[in-house]
Amino acid sequence: MQTPLLPCPALDASTGARTFIKPEMLQRTGSFKFRGAYNKLSHCAQQALSAGVVAYSSGNHAQGVAAAAQMLQIPAAVVMPADAPAIKLENTRGYGAEVLLYDRYREDREAVAQNLIDGRGSLLVEPYDDPDIIAGQGTVGLEIARQAAAHGIGLDAVLVCCGGGGLVSGTALALSEASPRTAIYSVEPADFDDTARSLVSGRREQVDPGARSFCDALLARTPGSLTFELNRQLLSGGLAVSDAEVAQAMAFAFRRLKLVAEPGGAVALAAALSGKLDLKGKAVAIVMSGGNVDPGLFARVLKET
Amino acid sequence: MQTPLLPCPALDASTGARTFIKPEMLQRTGSFKFRGAYNKLSHCAQQALSAGVVAYSSGNHAQGVAAAAQMLQIPAAVVMPADAPAIKLENTRGYGAEVLLYDRYREDREAVAQNLIDGRGSLLVEPYDDPDIIAGQGTVGLEIARQAAAHGIGLDAVLVCCGGGGLVSGTALALSEASPRTAIYSVEPADFDDTARSLVSGRREQVDPGARSFCDALLARTPGSLTFELNRQLLSGGLAVSDAEVAQAMAFAFRRLKLVAEPGGAVALAAALSGKLDLKGKAVAIVMSGGNVDPGLFARVLKET
Repeated sequence: MQTPLLPCPALDASTGARTFIKPEMLQRTGSFKFRGAYNKLSHCAQQALSAGVVAYSSGNHAQGVAAAAQMLQIPAAVVMPADAPAIKLENTRGYGAEVLLYDRYREDREAVAQNLIDGRGSLLVEPYDDPDIIAGQGTVGLEIARQAAAHGIGLDAVLVCCGGGGLVSGTALALSEASPRTAIYSVEPADFDDTARSLVSGRREQVDPGARSFCDALLARTPGSLTFELNRQLLSGGLAVSDAEVAQAMAFAFRRLKLVAEPGGAVALAAALSGKLDLKGKAVAIVMSGGNVDPGLFARVLKET
Repeated sequence: MQTPLLPCPALDASTGARTFIKPEMLQRTGSFKFRGAYNKLSHCAQQALSAGVVAYSSGNHAQGVAAAAQMLQIPAAVVMPADAPAIKLENTRGYGAEVLLYDRYREDREAVAQNLIDGRGSLLVEPYDDPDIIAGQGTVGLEIARQAAAHGIGLDAVLVCCGGGGLVSGTALALSEASPRTAIYSVEPADFDDTARSLVSGRREQVDPGARSFCDALLARTPGSLTFELNRQLLSGGLAVSDAEVAQAMAFAFRRLKLVAEPGGAVALAAALSGKLDLKGKAVAIVMSGGNVDPGLFARVLKET
């Protein structure tokens, strides 16, 4: 379903820009991931789906696949890290999917998923490195272009969070057609800035094995091959923000925007608020990608900021 | 500014209805009150405004008047209860208004405001009992009608929170023209159900002096005379919810809608979730009126629900 594009006077004041928020926490399942998952599943032949689908995900792709599979009456199994937010585990099960847990730091989730596929003949639904997934996430970009035009605005820049790169590459691809003069930037957690570094070096860089961040949705360890191929052609640059800057952005979203953002959903807003890019006098859209955060963590962030 | 009308699959499942949320916490100043205040101030002659405006408010009308006055470059003073949420006091001052505190249970806010007016010759901006205020809040109803039509939906019912009755009467007035077959219901905190009782008795009933509720925005002690005259002609009935039901609704909004609701902003959602009306099979819009809630209270609600 379509989400609105919200003008944000409160953010205009702190950035000197004319700003808009694309609030993907208001999307079905609480994040943009439903877009790609539904697009993928509705393009697969029913025959290919009879043995069900399998996905691995830190939680938002899991919910997206589970909800899309439930709507299309396809069995779904999802491999999720044991330390995923409780709300993500609970909702994924709530959409009727089978959840299999693994240890994020000791096990290889792709191998766990492959075992399932080998045993059941299920179809793997990639989290980002798949043209149908990228095209689905790209509907965010199509909507932004249409909605900005309805406000009479030509956008100078769009800031988009980045894990494996599906959302930002799809959004950039859509906007390269619909609004070619708009600059697109990826935003990552500081120690997970593999896309930012890869954009500079021209090859897919890796994240340090010891890296940690509370942005549980954005912990991909290297850019996708397909997503990076698009991103290196279409992005104007990669930004990175600290966990403390992300917490400030979550609190700003609570106080001024009245939106519930999960850490990974607030990185692009954090980049705007902490001045990673000079936005003064520009028209800027900020994609907030999701809001699936546990109440305990959310309360802690509100208390500490 | 216009707010969206959001389809709510998560709420459809719990009510058996096709539901839409009108999220007025996304409105400028975090509540619908900006609509009426801006409409009022922009219809007053500049001459009448040169001595400034005065308002009394538990906090959302305060912010609405302060922000509208700031945009129109009019001095504003607001009389607010000393126990108003800190976020409301802070934001009202942030919009450049002078704030005067009074004791909600011992002083008469209208008298405090009148003193100011007598001294300064300022214009009083009524919180609800004024045709320009009611018309401004009624743009919520106009938008609901247009947006529901864009979804191809004829609404069976609209649930709207009610303090003094400005929002619900304006919304009902707009919908009586734009969507005459839609039933409108007011929703109040259980011990502040003066409008519900007045609709039954046909005269303006009073709230018990000992009544308390954490819905700080909805503590009006009797219906407005103009708003009640409209409401008794236009409403299908009045509902009431307990503070515990409101807390559940705030938590539901956090978990499933990803919206920050203040207690008074969640009463209509609480009525839907707790089954105060049989909504099964119906198309229903629920107005959530505001999101100006202190982080401490919000965290407590998340913890206790």
